[in-house]
Amino acid sequence: MRTDSVGIVERKTFTFAAPPGGLPLECGDTLGPVTLAYETYGALDPDCSNAVLILHALTGDSHAAGYRRPDDPRPGWWDMMIGPGKAFDTNRYFVICPNCLGGCMGSTGPSSVDPATGRPYGLSFPMITIGDMVRAQKALVDHLGIEKLLAVAGGSMGGMQALEWVTAYPDAVRAAIPIATAAQLSAQGIAFNEVGRQAIMADPNWNGGDYYGGDPPARGLAIARMIGHITYLSDESMRRKFGRRLQDRKELSYDFMTDFQVESYLHHQGSIFTERFDANSYLYITKAIDYFDLTDMGSRTLEDALSNVKASFLIIAFSSDWLYPARQNKEIADALRAHNLEVSYCVIESPLGHDAFLLEPGHQTHLISHFLNHIYTEHAHGRHDR
Amino acid sequence: MRTDSVGIVERKTFTFAAPPGGLPLECGDTLGPVTLAYETYGALDPDCSNAVLILHALTGDSHAAGYRRPDDPRPGWWDMMIGPGKAFDTNRYFVICPNCLGGCMGSTGPSSVDPATGRPYGLSFPMITIGDMVRAQKALVDHLGIEKLLAVAGGSMGGMQALEWVTAYPDAVRAAIPIATAAQLSAQGIAFNEVGRQAIMADPNWNGGDYYGGDPPARGLAIARMIGHITYLSDESMRRKFGRRLQDRKELSYDFMTDFQVESYLHHQGSIFTERFDANSYLYITKAIDYFDLTDMGSRTLEDALSNVKASFLIIAFSSDWLYPARQNKEIADALRAHNLEVSYCVIESPLGHDAFLLEPGHQTHLISHFLNHIYTEHAHGRHDR
Repeated sequence: MRTDSVGIVERKTFTFAAPPGGLPLECGDTLGPVTLAYETYGALDPDCSNAVLILHALTGDSHAAGYRRPDDPRPGWWDMMIGPGKAFDTNRYFVICPNCLGGCMGSTGPSSVDPATGRPYGLSFPMITIGDMVRAQKALVDHLGIEKLLAVAGGSMGGMQALEWVTAYPDAVRAAIPIATAAQLSAQGIAFNEVGRQAIMADPNWNGGDYYGGDPPARGLAIARMIGHITYLSDESMRRKFGRRLQDRKELSYDFMTDFQVESYLHHQGSIFTERFDANSYLYITKAIDYFDLTDMGSRTLEDALSNVKASFLIIAFSSDWLYPARQNKEIADALRAHNLEVSYCVIESPLGHDAFLLEPGHQTHLISHFLNHIYTEHAHGRHDR
Repeated sequence: MRTDSVGIVERKTFTFAAPPGGLPLECGDTLGPVTLAYETYGALDPDCSNAVLILHALTGDSHAAGYRRPDDPRPGWWDMMIGPGKAFDTNRYFVICPNCLGGCMGSTGPSSVDPATGRPYGLSFPMITIGDMVRAQKALVDHLGIEKLLAVAGGSMGGMQALEWVTAYPDAVRAAIPIATAAQLSAQGIAFNEVGRQAIMADPNWNGGDYYGGDPPARGLAIARMIGHITYLSDESMRRKFGRRLQDRKELSYDFMTDFQVESYLHHQGSIFTERFDANSYLYITKAIDYFDLTDMGSRTLEDALSNVKASFLIIAFSSDWLYPARQNKEIADALRAHNLEVSYCVIESPLGHDAFLLEPGHQTHLISHFLNHIYTEHAHGRHDR
C-alpha cells in the first residue's frame, strides 16, 4: 500500500425516510426507505468544520479512494485526488463520498427491492432528479453531524450536484468545486443520452425494465456505454491513443469483426461496463442529468438562479472537453461573479476530453489544494495546520 | 416546376460485369453482374468534354436533382446545387449521379438478389470499398462514352470517392471538388460508425443479415441513424435549432417518453430513415468509409499517395464540421500543393456542422461555379459559352 493511499476502506450505509414519511421527490412521489451507500476518508474535526463532500459522475460510486481489500488491484475512481498529501488531503480533511440516489452500488435505485412488493422496483422506481440526489445527501450529512460542509466537489454530474448544493442549501456549504460541468446539459448532450437510452430499451432483454430475474439487457447497455465513451474522449485523444491502427491483425478483415483498435477498445469498455452497472440505473441517472437546469427550463436567468448562493468557487474546465465545454463552465463563473462571489475559473489545457477530470491529477491537484487550503485557513473554525 | 429545376427525372440503370467475369474487388472476391442506378441532367457535348460526376454520401442515392413525378413534394438531395444556372449548371454541364455499389437504391448491394441462389445476398455480399465503388463508376462513365470527366465532385463519402477517382484514374479527370471529407476517417469517426453497426447487429430482427423475408432490423437501424445524425450537426446548430425546448408539453414528463424537441427530432429522423434504407447497406457502406485510406494504412505518406494526380482541385470544408474537420481537408490540400497542382482550399464559415454541404448553397455555389467555369473554359475542348 502506498503511503499516499487512504488504505483499506469500507462501504457504509445510511438508511432513512422510512414509510409512511419517505423522501419527497421533485416528480411528486415519495420514496422510502432510502439507503445511501458511502465511504469516508480522514477524520472529522471535533467542531465538524473540515468535511468535504465528493460527488461522482454518471457511472461512479461511493468508492472514490483506497482499496477494498489488501489484494485489490485497483483503487477508487478518484484515488489520484484523495489521500494523504493529495488534493483532498485526508490528513486534514474528512472526505465523504456517497453513491447517488438512483444508482446501483449500494444506494437505493431501480434495482433495489421495493419493500411494498418484495421485488425490484424496475420502472416503478420514481423518476429522480439531481435535486432529489442532493436532498438525500443532505440527510446523510445531517446524520454525520455536519452542519456546514467545508466544500462540495465533483466532475460532470458531480459538478451539477455541487451546483445544486450551493443553491438548495446556501448556508450549509462554504465552498464548491464544480469541474467539467454545466448549469444545464446541451441539446447535443441530451441527444447522446437519449440514443443511449434507446439502445437499452431496444434490447429485448430489457423487457420494460423488468429483467432482474433473468438476463439483463447487456447488449443495449454496452452500446449506450460505447456512445458515452466516445463523448468522454476527444478527437485528438482518440487519434493519439488509437489512430487507425489495426487490432491484432496486419490486414483489413473484410468482414464485420473487429478491425481497428478503437473498435476493440469500445467493445471492451462496453462489455466490462455491463458487469458492474444496472441498465435501469443508466436510464434514470441520464434522465436526471438531462433534467438538471439551474435556469428552471429557461424561466429565470442563470444569474437569478444563483442569487442566494454564498459559497466561494473554484470552477475547472478542460480545453478539449466537448461534452461539457469550457464555455458552459464559464457561464457559471460569470453568473456567480455578478453576485460578487469569490470565484476562480480555470481552463486546464488537456487533450483528454471530458475524461480529463479523472485522468489529469497535476493541475487539478495544484488548483484544488491551494483553493481548499485558502478556504480552510480563512473560513473554517477548526484546527489549522501550522 | 421552378425554372431553375432540371424538371422530371428518370432513374436509369447500367448492368455490367456478368459472370463468369465479374467485377474484381479489393477484398479478393469478384461480383457480377453489377448494376448501377444513375440519373443524368443536362446534355453531353458532342466531344464529351462537359461531364461532371456527382458522388453521394453514406445514405444518398442517384436522385440528386429534379423531381420524380409532377406532384413529387421533394426534389433530389443536392437540387440546390444542380440545375439551370446553379453551381453545377445543367445548361452547360452534363451531370451524372450514380447510386454507389453496395447501396440499396437501385445499385447492386446486399439487398439485391444473388443470381447464384435466387435470394438476397445478405451477409454473403462481399465487402466493398471506396475503390470498388469507383471502379464500378468508371465502367459506367466508359459506357456513357466519356473518356475524360470535366470534374468529379461530392461531399463526405462522395469526397472520398472523388479522391479515389483522381488517384485511380489520373488521366480520366480534369478537376475534383472534394467537400467536407478526409483522406482517411478519424478514429472518432470509426468509433461512431462501429457503434451504429453494433446497434443494427444487436437488433434480433437483423438475424445475421438474413431478414429480407421478414421484419427488418428497424429499431437498430434507427439507433444507428440517430447516432449518425448527431455527428452531422454541431453543438451550436443543435443549440440554435432545439436548445432545451420541450416537445408538445409544458412540463417535464418524469417518465421515459419524449421530453425534449431534440429527442423528438432524432426519433423522427431515425424512424423515417428505416423506411428508405437497408440496414445491411448501412453496415457495408460504413465499413467502406472506415476502410478508405489514401495512405494505405500508413504505409505511405499522403503526399506520396497523391504523386500521380493530375487534376485541379477545389477543396471545401466547413468551420463547424467536427466529423470531417477542416484540418483533415487542409491536409489533402497541402499534400496536393506539394506536387504543384492547382489547388483552391476554402473553409466556409457555417454553424451547420457536417450537414452544411447539403444545406448551405450560397458560398458553395459561388466557389464551385467559378471553379468549374475556369476549368471548362481553360481546359475543356468543347463548346464554350460566350
